[in-house]
Amino acid sequence: MEQPLTPAEFTAALRGLRHRYWDRHPFHVRVHAGEASPEDIRRWVANRWYYQRCLAQKNAAIIANCPDPEIRRRWLERISFHDGHSGGEGGLGDWLALGAAVGLDETELLDERHVLRGTRFAVDGYLTFCRTRPWWESAAAALTELFSPEHMSDRIHAWREHYDWIKPDGMAYFEKRIPQVREDASYTLGLVVRHCVTREQQETAIAALAFKCDVLGAMLDAIDYAGQR
Amino acid sequence: MEQPLTPAEFTAALRGLRHRYWDRHPFHVRVHAGEASPEDIRRWVANRWYYQRCLAQKNAAIIANCPDPEIRRRWLERISFHDGHSGGEGGLGDWLALGAAVGLDETELLDERHVLRGTRFAVDGYLTFCRTRPWWESAAAALTELFSPEHMSDRIHAWREHYDWIKPDGMAYFEKRIPQVREDASYTLGLVVRHCVTREQQETAIAALAFKCDVLGAMLDAIDYAGQR
Repeated sequence: MEQPLTPAEFTAALRGLRHRYWDRHPFHVRVHAGEASPEDIRRWVANRWYYQRCLAQKNAAIIANCPDPEIRRRWLERISFHDGHSGGEGGLGDWLALGAAVGLDETELLDERHVLRGTRFAVDGYLTFCRTRPWWESAAAALTELFSPEHMSDRIHAWREHYDWIKPDGMAYFEKRIPQVREDASYTLGLVVRHCVTREQQETAIAALAFKCDVLGAMLDAIDYAGQR
Repeated sequence: MEQPLTPAEFTAALRGLRHRYWDRHPFHVRVHAGEASPEDIRRWVANRWYYQRCLAQKNAAIIANCPDPEIRRRWLERISFHDGHSGGEGGLGDWLALGAAVGLDETELLDERHVLRGTRFAVDGYLTFCRTRPWWESAAAALTELFSPEHMSDRIHAWREHYDWIKPDGMAYFEKRIPQVREDASYTLGLVVRHCVTREQQETAIAALAFKCDVLGAMLDAIDYAGQR
């Protein structure tokens, strides 16, 4: 087996997957350029709901596969971030508010009538990955967090500039998520770099992050294709 | 719980999913109308390779979940149908021959370079389904066999008519598969109808067949979308 990468090389390799992140997908490019119709925005919000509702479960799967109580304690916060402490709170509650701000009522989101088969297979695949792989592979997959703060910040600006029909209070999810995700990304990166000490583990972690970029990209492929039919 | 459907009603409900089968997908409609480019045909063959190579595994997963030796004995034939008795034989060998007939070399198929992320998530989702659900749900999912003989027969005619650049000896897979799939479909339908005696089991079996139609449809969505980008 080859020599392990140094921590700096390994970090650079993970960050080097930047180009596979979904912010450069043609669908997002069009949305941020102001070219999306209300139907496009609603289809994106309703499909991403299916992803949002998997996040607490995928984080619980990571905890379920992790033998280290210190890591489990820290990772637990992520479940609460998404689920909140009661109905209508947390990331899920904020996503329902986003739905309302773009003109989707709660029933339409909850019954998943707008969720495309491509979204379903990609998100279900992510959940299966986190249930069946070692915790550190799933932690590495979560490192799309490295790329997301800037993208979310761009989204807030682009939506305010181009889509005045979207109620601004719908953006709470992104506003709360940006500082949280910066903190999470820094913790996760340190954890993955400390844990992956062999070249094989490092390559596996890089592949896990590439896989996660494909989960997100496949969702947008489905969302974009549905708008063209 | 509602009354169970009669065998005739249950069979009609399963056959009633005909409209969700992938023969009516815009991509297949264009291929059969002679409007596909060589790149379209090659992309389809290379992506469907990923599905073909999962079939022996999904059949083994069904056997792995089945407590009845009589069913297991019969289902075993399906593994050999796809894997053959040595390299280059069976459904896999015939699919490699189809690849050659459309101008894809074996390396290109085997290294999966043309396999799209949407295909991967759909097929992996099908395999996870067969690994984790009761054997009779996966058997019901296999009932797309009810719809496939006619579609394969149309394909042979359409390809011969419209695409003279495809070598005719590449069609062996479909020519062997048509009589086999008719026999398999009849056996599987009898098995599922005999086994699913409660309304809940019947509804679950119908949902499994709908899920399988989505697996196939999601592959074509990805293949069609990739041709438009």
